[in-house]
Amino acid sequence: MDERVAVIGVGHTEFGELWDRSWVELVEEAGLKALEDARIRKKQIQKFFLGNMSLGMFGGQEHTASKVFSEIFNSGPESEILGRRIEGACSSGGLALEASYNDVLAGIQEGEDRIIMVGGFEKMTDKPTEKATKILSAASDMGKEIGFTFPSLYGMLKDRYLEETDAKEQDFDYIAVKSHKNASLNPKAQYPFEVSQEQVEDSFKVASPTKLLNSSGIADGAASVIITTESKAKELGSDYVILEGVEGANDSIALFEREEILSLVSTQKAAKRVYEATGIQPEDVDVAEVHDCFSIAEALALEDLGFSPKKEAWKWIRKSLSDCEEKEAPIPYTLPKNESLFVNTSGGLKAKGHPVGATGVAQVVEVVKQLRGEADERQVPDAEVGLTHNVGGSGGTAVVSLFKKPKIT
Amino acid sequence: MDERVAVIGVGHTEFGELWDRSWVELVEEAGLKALEDARIRKKQIQKFFLGNMSLGMFGGQEHTASKVFSEIFNSGPESEILGRRIEGACSSGGLALEASYNDVLAGIQEGEDRIIMVGGFEKMTDKPTEKATKILSAASDMGKEIGFTFPSLYGMLKDRYLEETDAKEQDFDYIAVKSHKNASLNPKAQYPFEVSQEQVEDSFKVASPTKLLNSSGIADGAASVIITTESKAKELGSDYVILEGVEGANDSIALFEREEILSLVSTQKAAKRVYEATGIQPEDVDVAEVHDCFSIAEALALEDLGFSPKKEAWKWIRKSLSDCEEKEAPIPYTLPKNESLFVNTSGGLKAKGHPVGATGVAQVVEVVKQLRGEADERQVPDAEVGLTHNVGGSGGTAVVSLFKKPKIT
Repeated sequence: MDERVAVIGVGHTEFGELWDRSWVELVEEAGLKALEDARIRKKQIQKFFLGNMSLGMFGGQEHTASKVFSEIFNSGPESEILGRRIEGACSSGGLALEASYNDVLAGIQEGEDRIIMVGGFEKMTDKPTEKATKILSAASDMGKEIGFTFPSLYGMLKDRYLEETDAKEQDFDYIAVKSHKNASLNPKAQYPFEVSQEQVEDSFKVASPTKLLNSSGIADGAASVIITTESKAKELGSDYVILEGVEGANDSIALFEREEILSLVSTQKAAKRVYEATGIQPEDVDVAEVHDCFSIAEALALEDLGFSPKKEAWKWIRKSLSDCEEKEAPIPYTLPKNESLFVNTSGGLKAKGHPVGATGVAQVVEVVKQLRGEADERQVPDAEVGLTHNVGGSGGTAVVSLFKKPKIT
Repeated sequence: MDERVAVIGVGHTEFGELWDRSWVELVEEAGLKALEDARIRKKQIQKFFLGNMSLGMFGGQEHTASKVFSEIFNSGPESEILGRRIEGACSSGGLALEASYNDVLAGIQEGEDRIIMVGGFEKMTDKPTEKATKILSAASDMGKEIGFTFPSLYGMLKDRYLEETDAKEQDFDYIAVKSHKNASLNPKAQYPFEVSQEQVEDSFKVASPTKLLNSSGIADGAASVIITTESKAKELGSDYVILEGVEGANDSIALFEREEILSLVSTQKAAKRVYEATGIQPEDVDVAEVHDCFSIAEALALEDLGFSPKKEAWKWIRKSLSDCEEKEAPIPYTLPKNESLFVNTSGGLKAKGHPVGATGVAQVVEVVKQLRGEADERQVPDAEVGLTHNVGGSGGTAVVSLFKKPKIT
């Protein structure tokens, strides 16, 4: 395939407890920002894909895309756009990107340069936290019926990791310190402030050994990206970034069905496919937004994405971050093959926030800003290759995408 | 584009009150039947798209595709398949077909012959009918907050139609008589029995002027189709049908936002696009499965799909069906340009049943069976061109697809 897919615009709302905003206002804000960024008009969009986990249970609304069409895109008989919602729990945004990427390729096959909007959103804080946690557990299997929530499922992964390696609890806490430090430079973040190693260590245990400050919160927010062919991006004069590839994979929804719970096989498969499809290797990556719903998840992501051997990420985390309280953000990892890899410069799910359906799209926004050199105070020097990694549930789905500055070929 | 898309297998569960079956069992049954029909194995499938409106509210489960992967497709490390759920209310199945069609085209662009499974399902009867009706109203806009349900929304359309034309209530009742007669020949139908014109007329008013026997019911069920390229279909030796095109469009989610409520603009737009893209005209169609959630909807579909001038379908319905109690099923319409068009030979949403997420896929199953000459007692003679029409809400989304026997070019 000679033609490539390009991201031509990105938009992102504030993440947090946005009680005075409706979900559709958030989708609209992110979408309009992406249109403005791409310097195109609504009418130029052919299709939109909305990543959302559960507006049904959170807000009593289905038929989401039709509502978005009504509120945002409807300009009467000449409106020629088709929307739909994609659901894959917390990986809904990543799956929407994957579907959109393929739709742009389908357009090439049909001789069209399709322009597609990928939106992701979730409005979670209108429910009390306990109710929101219960709704989120709908992303898991029957464990939810005996009281397993995601803090406890990821707690089991952490327990096992502590059992099978020489890692210490503190190693995971460094990750939270780093993420909050990065988020302190991100004005859109839900928790834009630093926390100390001691604060993380002393935070209460939500589901032992998962502590509060090892966990992402409940949030509202939306993100949007616009993609098309590289030819169209050039024709539009966009400051674009190449979406080199996006691949997804599934694993069993329940942990008890897995042979080995410390490998997120879905992440491994998706990463393998996208590395093979693009020719990019882990050591080529400069910036990555990975799915750190809990601190243990970031450690496992470093391993499953190929940045560290299995069961050794804790060593590299300790080496890179044990003195991170003293360092200036953004703070990189030193890894076996990556001298410096910046992970979750946005603050990650932990500190930027995790409105679940928005996450996979918001990750793309951060990586694109980094590759365009527009990440302000948290800009990584000379970032040329970026990766996003979005997980559903405890690894039942994973989507991995690779991005490149267009000059690099 | 020289390469075409082919349907190589179809599967369909019984529709009805299936209290002893779980949603995942239904998805599995339909999927396995489609695999058996296509004479391929699970491992040959690259992706699956699940159309479903609201398993969250009906069954407390999201991350549907991961659960389906676990129960059906997971064969360990070698499982290379990616699933996701597509939501667009009652058009979820049609939208899943549209996305899958484009994914096959994307595969061609990447030099692959992708084989994709499209599943649709809903498990609605585990909730009491009043609760199910409330969940279904999540497919509408704020009308639901002041008590509007779908029987009342479509009742308003019928009221208006009766006001603006010389149609009589009986004209709509003929449709129900015809659909039940067709369903009596369909062993998968929820209501496989005939009803008399008098029974329809005397049935109680659910939301005047919508009567019980003008309405589809609450149902459980699943359907599945497998699509790939025509080259692959030939290589596999499949008894395939060409999916000539599938197009979708949106309209405002709420009726009050429309200039004219008797036109489902989304149906008109989707139909126009797919007729243009394929070169097929309404008069070429032999069999059609249209979205008759209420009797008025079938009348409007005949108009919006181009089979009848606007506000005149009632005349052709009366002409074709007023004596249908005496006729042998399947019973065709006589229309201005179609001497005989067989609509909803399956029994339609009215009598075959309407498990909402399954409907758009189930329609494809019926049309493919008709074009393959495998519709048993309800077989239409010499059917060569088929159409499916799937609507979300009261027209906020519509998807129209065209199918052809492969010999016709």
